[in-house]
Amino acid sequence: MSQKLLLDYGSGGKASQRLISGMFLKYLGNDRLNRLDDAAFLELSGPISMSTDTFTVDPLFFPGGDIGSLAVHGTVNDVAMLGARPRFITCGLILEEGLDMDVLERIIASVGRAARNAGVEVVTGDTKVVPRGAADKIFINTTGVGEIFVTPGPSGHSAKPGDAILISGTMGDHGLTILSKREGLSFDAPVESDSAALNHLIVRLLQEIPEIHVLRDPTRGGLATTLSEIALQSNVECFIREKDIPVREAVAGGCSFLGLDPLYLANEGKFICILPEKFADKALEIMRSDVLATNAQQIGEVRKDHPGKVVLETPIGGHRLLDMLEGAQLPRIC
Amino acid sequence: MSQKLLLDYGSGGKASQRLISGMFLKYLGNDRLNRLDDAAFLELSGPISMSTDTFTVDPLFFPGGDIGSLAVHGTVNDVAMLGARPRFITCGLILEEGLDMDVLERIIASVGRAARNAGVEVVTGDTKVVPRGAADKIFINTTGVGEIFVTPGPSGHSAKPGDAILISGTMGDHGLTILSKREGLSFDAPVESDSAALNHLIVRLLQEIPEIHVLRDPTRGGLATTLSEIALQSNVECFIREKDIPVREAVAGGCSFLGLDPLYLANEGKFICILPEKFADKALEIMRSDVLATNAQQIGEVRKDHPGKVVLETPIGGHRLLDMLEGAQLPRIC
Repeated sequence: MSQKLLLDYGSGGKASQRLISGMFLKYLGNDRLNRLDDAAFLELSGPISMSTDTFTVDPLFFPGGDIGSLAVHGTVNDVAMLGARPRFITCGLILEEGLDMDVLERIIASVGRAARNAGVEVVTGDTKVVPRGAADKIFINTTGVGEIFVTPGPSGHSAKPGDAILISGTMGDHGLTILSKREGLSFDAPVESDSAALNHLIVRLLQEIPEIHVLRDPTRGGLATTLSEIALQSNVECFIREKDIPVREAVAGGCSFLGLDPLYLANEGKFICILPEKFADKALEIMRSDVLATNAQQIGEVRKDHPGKVVLETPIGGHRLLDMLEGAQLPRIC
Repeated sequence: MSQKLLLDYGSGGKASQRLISGMFLKYLGNDRLNRLDDAAFLELSGPISMSTDTFTVDPLFFPGGDIGSLAVHGTVNDVAMLGARPRFITCGLILEEGLDMDVLERIIASVGRAARNAGVEVVTGDTKVVPRGAADKIFINTTGVGEIFVTPGPSGHSAKPGDAILISGTMGDHGLTILSKREGLSFDAPVESDSAALNHLIVRLLQEIPEIHVLRDPTRGGLATTLSEIALQSNVECFIREKDIPVREAVAGGCSFLGLDPLYLANEGKFICILPEKFADKALEIMRSDVLATNAQQIGEVRKDHPGKVVLETPIGGHRLLDMLEGAQLPRIC
C-alpha cells in the first residue's frame, strides 16, 4: 500500500479490498466481521440498547488516548448506561485523501485494542474517502448494541427526590487535555484524558444494585449540562455541593488560568449514578474498588424544590443555579 | 434559530437542545427517540442483522433523491439483504459550521419521509458541528438493525453452481445521475437516481422463496464489482450475458459519451438475487409485480468453471473477464 491514502481506497474496488484485508481485518478481525457481507449476523436477544456517536476530535492523538480508543469508549459507555452489556459495535470511517497511512494504521490498531479491552466485537464497517479538503483527516462513527439485563433499566427520566447523586471520579480531565494539547499549552502537572470503557464496572454495579435510577456519562457539556438534562427529564432539582466534586489540582489550575469551568468540561471515562440514598454507601464501595472510580464521591442529592434546575452550593455556603450553557466552551473535543 | 449553522449547535448545550427539539424531533420524532437518553431501548428478538454506512454524496440534492433519503435507503437495504426486516436506524450527523439551516431542514425532513416509507424508526442520533472547512457541508452515518426471519439467511458465501442470477432492474442510474449533476452535464433524455428502500419487496420475496441463496445490492463498484465479490466469497464463476442486462437508453448514451461502463456504476435501489434455477421464474414474477423491479431479468447463471471470476458473454458471443476495478470511476457517489 502507498504511504498516503488514495481516493481509490474508498472505491469499493481492489484498492478498498486491500485496505480491508490488509489493515482492518488484521486489527479488528473476528468471525462475524471476516464474512464481509452487507450486514452482520448477530445472535442477540432483546431488549436491546443501541447508541451512536461520531468522533471528530482534534488532535487525533492526545495524552490518555486517541480518536480510535475514544470512539470505542464513547459508544460502549452510552450503550452500558441503559443497563446493558455492550456486545457489538460498527465502525464507519470518513477519511481525507492524503492521510498518512501510518496514522490510519495506529488509529485502527487502537480501535481494535480498545474493543478487545471492552469485550466488544467490531462486526461491520464502512469506509468513505473524500477528496483533500472535504474532511479533516479522519472522522469515526461507532454504533453499538448490547443486551439490557435490568428492567426497568436506568434512565434520565427516573431520578426521584431523596435520591443520592454520585460521580465516579474527577471532572474535566478529558476536556482540558484536548484543549491544552490543541493549543500547545503545558501546565506544571501533566493532564491526561480519562477516556475509558466503563461497561465492566457498570455491569457489576447494576448486578449488585439493580435499584439504580439514573446512569449517565457527563461527556459534551460536562457535569453541569448532563445534570441539567436529568433535572429536566425527571422534573426534579439536582442539588450538588462544590466542595464534594473531585477535580484534579492540575485541571483546577489549568481551568483557572484559562477561565474555564471544570463542571462544563467533557469527561470520557466517568459516570453519574443517581440512586436511593440507602444504596449510596454500597455503590461507592463498589465503585472505589475499581481502578476507574477510585475517586468516586457523593456530591449531592435529588430534591423537589426547583424542578428542572441544578443548584450548586458554593464552598462558603452560597447557592447558585448551574445553567446549561448556550454553546460550547470548546468545539471538537470528542 | 439563525439562518446559518453555528458551532454552538453541536455543543451539547442549549443551542443543541433547540436544534434537537425544534428540528430533529419535528421530523424524526417517535416514542423511542423522544426519550433522548444516551441510548435507545429496543424490543428486538434475535437473530439480528446490523449494517452501517456513511454518506458523503456530492451534490446533496440530485434527481431522484438527496443525501437524506439515500442515507435511509442505503442502510435499510443492507440490513434487508441478510434476510431481515429492518426496524430501527440511528442517524449520526457531521455538519459544517455555516451550513444553510434550510438545507439542513430539507435533508432532515427527507430522512424522516424515507424512514416512514421504509417502515423504520430513527431511534437515536448524534450531531457534531465542525469549524468551516473541516468538513464539506454534511455527512450522514446511518446504522440499522432488523430481525432475521429466514435461516439460513441469504449470504454472499452461498451461491451454488447451477443457480440463476437475477437483477431487479436497470443498471447505472444512480452513478450516472450523480456524475452528470455534479459536472453540470445534461443528456437528451433525463436520468434519475434509482434510490429506494427495497425491504418490503425483499421480505415478500423471501417469504415466498426462502430458498434464495444470495441477495446483494450492487452499490459502489456496480454490478461487476459486487458479482466479483460474490464469486470470490462463494468460490464460483458468475456467468452473465450482456444482452440480458437492462440499461436505460439515456444511461447507455451518457456512459458511451463519457467513456464509463454502466456495469461498474453504483445503483441505490436494485438488488442481485441468486437462487436455484427452478425458482427463477417465480422470483421474476414477484419482482416484476413491484414497481421497484418491473425490469427484473435473469442475466446469467452460476458455474464452477472459473472460480472467483465473473465472465461476461458479449452481444456477439465473445467472452471476457469482468475484473474488479482497482479504484473508483467516481468518488463521492454515495
